[in-house]
Amino acid sequence: MNNKKHIVAIGRAAIDLNANEINRPMEETSTFTKYVGGSPANIMIGTAKLGLDVGMIANVSDDQHGRFITNYFEKVGVDTSQINVDEDGHKIGLTFTEIKSPKESSILMYREEVADLYIAPEQVDELYIKNSEYLLISGTALSKSPSREAVLKALLIAKKHDVKIIFELDYRPYSWKNEEETSIYYELVANQSDVVIGTRDEFDMVEHYKSKTDQEISALLFEEQPNLVVIKHGVQGSHAFDKEGNTFEGKAFKANVVKTFGAGDSYAAAFIYALVKGKTVEEALKYGAASAAIVVSSHSSSEAMPTVDKIEQLIKEQS
Amino acid sequence: MNNKKHIVAIGRAAIDLNANEINRPMEETSTFTKYVGGSPANIMIGTAKLGLDVGMIANVSDDQHGRFITNYFEKVGVDTSQINVDEDGHKIGLTFTEIKSPKESSILMYREEVADLYIAPEQVDELYIKNSEYLLISGTALSKSPSREAVLKALLIAKKHDVKIIFELDYRPYSWKNEEETSIYYELVANQSDVVIGTRDEFDMVEHYKSKTDQEISALLFEEQPNLVVIKHGVQGSHAFDKEGNTFEGKAFKANVVKTFGAGDSYAAAFIYALVKGKTVEEALKYGAASAAIVVSSHSSSEAMPTVDKIEQLIKEQS
Amino acid sequence: MNNKKHIVAIGRAAIDLNANEINRPMEETSTFTKYVGGSPANIMIGTAKLGLDVGMIANVSDDQHGRFITNYFEKVGVDTSQINVDEDGHKIGLTFTEIKSPKESSILMYREEVADLYIAPEQVDELYIKNSEYLLISGTALSKSPSREAVLKALLIAKKHDVKIIFELDYRPYSWKNEEETSIYYELVANQSDVVIGTRDEFDMVEHYKSKTDQEISALLFEEQPNLVVIKHGVQGSHAFDKEGNTFEGKAFKANVVKTFGAGDSYAAAFIYALVKGKTVEEALKYGAASAAIVVSSHSSSEAMPTVDKIEQLIKEQS
Amino acid sequence: MNNKKHIVAIGRAAIDLNANEINRPMEETSTFTKYVGGSPANIMIGTAKLGLDVGMIANVSDDQHGRFITNYFEKVGVDTSQINVDEDGHKIGLTFTEIKSPKESSILMYREEVADLYIAPEQVDELYIKNSEYLLISGTALSKSPSREAVLKALLIAKKHDVKIIFELDYRPYSWKNEEETSIYYELVANQSDVVIGTRDEFDMVEHYKSKTDQEISALLFEEQPNLVVIKHGVQGSHAFDKEGNTFEGKAFKANVVKTFGAGDSYAAAFIYALVKGKTVEEALKYGAASAAIVVSSHSSSEAMPTVDKIEQLIKEQS
Repeated sequence: MNNKKHIVAIGRAAIDLNANEINRPMEETSTFTKYVGGSPANIMIGTAKLGLDVGMIANVSDDQHGRFITNYFEKVGVDTSQINVDEDGHKIGLTFTEIKSPKESSILMYREEVADLYIAPEQVDELYIKNSEYLLISGTALSKSPSREAVLKALLIAKKHDVKIIFELDYRPYSWKNEEETSIYYELVANQSDVVIGTRDEFDMVEHYKSKTDQEISALLFEEQPNLVVIKHGVQGSHAFDKEGNTFEGKAFKANVVKTFGAGDSYAAAFIYALVKGKTVEEALKYGAASAAIVVSSHSSSEAMPTVDKIEQLIKEQS
Repeated sequence: MNNKKHIVAIGRAAIDLNANEINRPMEETSTFTKYVGGSPANIMIGTAKLGLDVGMIANVSDDQHGRFITNYFEKVGVDTSQINVDEDGHKIGLTFTEIKSPKESSILMYREEVADLYIAPEQVDELYIKNSEYLLISGTALSKSPSREAVLKALLIAKKHDVKIIFELDYRPYSWKNEEETSIYYELVANQSDVVIGTRDEFDMVEHYKSKTDQEISALLFEEQPNLVVIKHGVQGSHAFDKEGNTFEGKAFKANVVKTFGAGDSYAAAFIYALVKGKTVEEALKYGAASAAIVVSSHSSSEAMPTVDKIEQLIKEQS
Repeated sequence: MNNKKHIVAIGRAAIDLNANEINRPMEETSTFTKYVGGSPANIMIGTAKLGLDVGMIANVSDDQHGRFITNYFEKVGVDTSQINVDEDGHKIGLTFTEIKSPKESSILMYREEVADLYIAPEQVDELYIKNSEYLLISGTALSKSPSREAVLKALLIAKKHDVKIIFELDYRPYSWKNEEETSIYYELVANQSDVVIGTRDEFDMVEHYKSKTDQEISALLFEEQPNLVVIKHGVQGSHAFDKEGNTFEGKAFKANVVKTFGAGDSYAAAFIYALVKGKTVEEALKYGAASAAIVVSSHSSSEAMPTVDKIEQLIKEQS
Repeated sequence: MNNKKHIVAIGRAAIDLNANEINRPMEETSTFTKYVGGSPANIMIGTAKLGLDVGMIANVSDDQHGRFITNYFEKVGVDTSQINVDEDGHKIGLTFTEIKSPKESSILMYREEVADLYIAPEQVDELYIKNSEYLLISGTALSKSPSREAVLKALLIAKKHDVKIIFELDYRPYSWKNEEETSIYYELVANQSDVVIGTRDEFDMVEHYKSKTDQEISALLFEEQPNLVVIKHGVQGSHAFDKEGNTFEGKAFKANVVKTFGAGDSYAAAFIYALVKGKTVEEALKYGAASAAIVVSSHSSSEAMPTVDKIEQLIKEQS
């Protein structure tokens, strides 16, 4: 046996400021609670809570918010040896969340010149990636230089050392210059990844996938490197395809929804956990759906990430 | 009698997020309370609470934070007819405040591409300024284009219509490119203002004032437009000088200090109130000091702005 | 008597590349001749050729073009002690000129990140300006930071030491962000200058002058610092006004026009020469017009700057 | 037979301004002759003069320089249907060349905000690339967005339609942010190209190739898409490697050198011509070397591109 990490992620770690007063517009709220946020950070927190050996390659601010994030990672067991403290004054991204009603929530982002998009290629260590089974790439980290080049370097290293690449599309409109740019980098990276996960809306960002069925998109990807494609359709569940030609249907679990954000990250965390543990794609889809159902029922995205017991219990209840 | 406003200010309106858990570093806090902030906004809120007829020329974000600010102005009686809602996605500046101890507090600013520095010259209305007795210019609004040009336009209009200009130096290092730039614009605007108010540290930002005494700085300014100069020395009190050659000593009032920020704005609000009401410089210095003492004893900068009664009561108590 | 310089200018020094093949569009030309260009550089070259003791405060590239300019200044007697060699790779501005016909010529500018707009306040030496009778400010140097601040610093120094300021509006649309910005800085600097020279089109860039007559514009300026205003109307001649209420008419001289560019700079050079030499405004207008007539009859703007003899001969011929 | 183009290039078209007075520093020259320049433009001009059916995907300025380039392409037979005229005022890049001696020449570049780096993905037409046998990618076009994304889009299209990709490294230090960035994009694109051509210095820009022999670099590339690698060593000749394990030595031809620039482009043009015409790698190396010898003996890079006859005659003479 080796002592490789199960998975390391490259991308953003941010802060969520969730309005405490819910079911009203944010201009009428007066207090906020602070949590770690950002898709790849949430996924690593989720997988760490599920017991995997994980790490984060990220750039954080040299201030109280940056230290809060690093402290939290350490508390839940995400390796922070590759967390770089920004020396140029870039700040942590912020997401203020407003819960107007269980169905209507919105976010207010602070993403100007944020630290996570200033992770530089020289911060990406060849040995660290080589010593992991999986590399998780978050699509948002491709949206701007130098983060974009840091991700491309990580990808070249992973391919060189046969580290499997999971590409979580994680599309956020505010960081990209235009959709044409998104389309190009998403296609370029998807073609060279092993597993591609995203919502149907996210796949539609790629020009060539737009008017295609889920099946056709998978077929295009299977001509290149990928061997597993997961396309999510929210409450309608999700479709997974493998290179051998199998199609898998995943159903969403029932939940007492407080807010919908955090669903994708908790889904990805549990899905990845199941993959790493050698479970079938069918089982992995259940783990993902159960985990998502648990997180949407709570106030935060990171803090609420469930344990394996909780997930397996919910699977039992709803099977 | 005319129906002119007493004073209108041009500059930033921002949001303070004050950590609720005090006497600890911010990375260990978990909740924040939201207040309106930003020096000229605080001063206008302060003067409105003191009963003056005031207005704000400002640019706010088209989101929940922007609306929160405008709503608050309306609630306390600051005219919002010249509040422009930014159409290019610029966000409200944020200040997270940390109170480590009554003597040690610090702030964490979000000031990248903020709405207040995007107020443009075309948003400055000649008639609005013409119909005011005073124009308050906040130095920070000079730190970047196009806000800088909006302020210079306001200044040219004020001079043309004999509206008296109060220049509050309000120096914040994070917005300026370098100190040479600050020095040039501060000297240029100070030379053309009627009243100049600042801390001694702020006056030292101007190259030509650096090695001079308070008296000498005033003398230089009295060769130009100014006729009243106030130089503040924190707990040591403040010095005021007028063109006729008088010097006035202002003493700081005793206070049960929670945090020091907000002191300057509350001082300015009450000092301006006294000036407008025709009180002597000596009285104005007392109003300023009393108001500052009240605000540093509380958790917020804007919400805590006192009424005239409270100020006059404290003056009575400590005289 | 002191050994003060007659005049020093602050602003751009550039390169003109004049197509040798004339009377055709530039896409059909194949060779170019290189000259020093840029309004304030041309004016200093012109005044040096007329025998004045002059100097240039400028920033040039650290390359062959920069050295060509400095060498040429030295050759014609413009002091180069305040020419700074740019250390950040900024290039000299270029102007390709095309002469389609005597009446139709056009220019193609290279002005992106040019050295002249990177002259910084720290390059402006107080003593150098103090030791000059006049400071010439070129309006284009106000169009961008840090050149803008360098000019404002020079202006504050000149006013402090009673050095007379000549403001040559020299408006070029390609450098400014928008017309509102131009209007503000032009008004601000014109108000604080002693002599203001420009074409009627250039005066119209200032919002407050737009719908006014030449007489009314002068009246507005005479409420502030200026005591001499020259408004040029091309071949229709020019109007000069002084604070005492005199109006002077200047006529254009007949010329065998090769191209029209260079006219304004040669006009300014000879007008300034006459002023410095204590001639009347009426005479100065003649010197300006004669000098312009000579330059428009030749291929270059700088190389063609005339001697006093040539100007006085033409004045004799056409009087 | 189909009617496909032999090759289309994506990248810069620029202007060379070659000093007419040679064997002296440029500050002492006074006239310049204008030529079309820019590596991919030169290569397309070269291949067109050799009789191939070629086209250029490029962005040119909306001015006399842009029209001069398009006119010249049309004159020599480069298809201009994919030449976009820039609508945002970006200018054509300029290269002033100085010939101090046959061995010592230097260039002075104007590359700020140049039109060629503003070619956008939406200007890349799928059908146009599909209808070509080869796509030539110039490395400099990868140095900045949006040109970088336009190239990556062209690459994705070429791979989709089995159009062979020739990657000419064409490294120019002035356009890239840093060497780490160059290394990443060069490796990414080289891995997905069919033919990779560059000088040894250019290959050394890629981190992973730096300390390797020519043979080892080729071996790394042959694990990916490439099947032909040409590494040039100036006057020492060049090495070519193919996927079958063959190594070819190319010798430089004797020449009466006027200046060295233009050598690489003329080499590439003739080498590509030979490849397209089905000649052996050994022959192609001779064509390249002969073409380079002819161009370095003349004053320009584009205008001097030889015909097939001239190349074959020189090969005969020097074999």
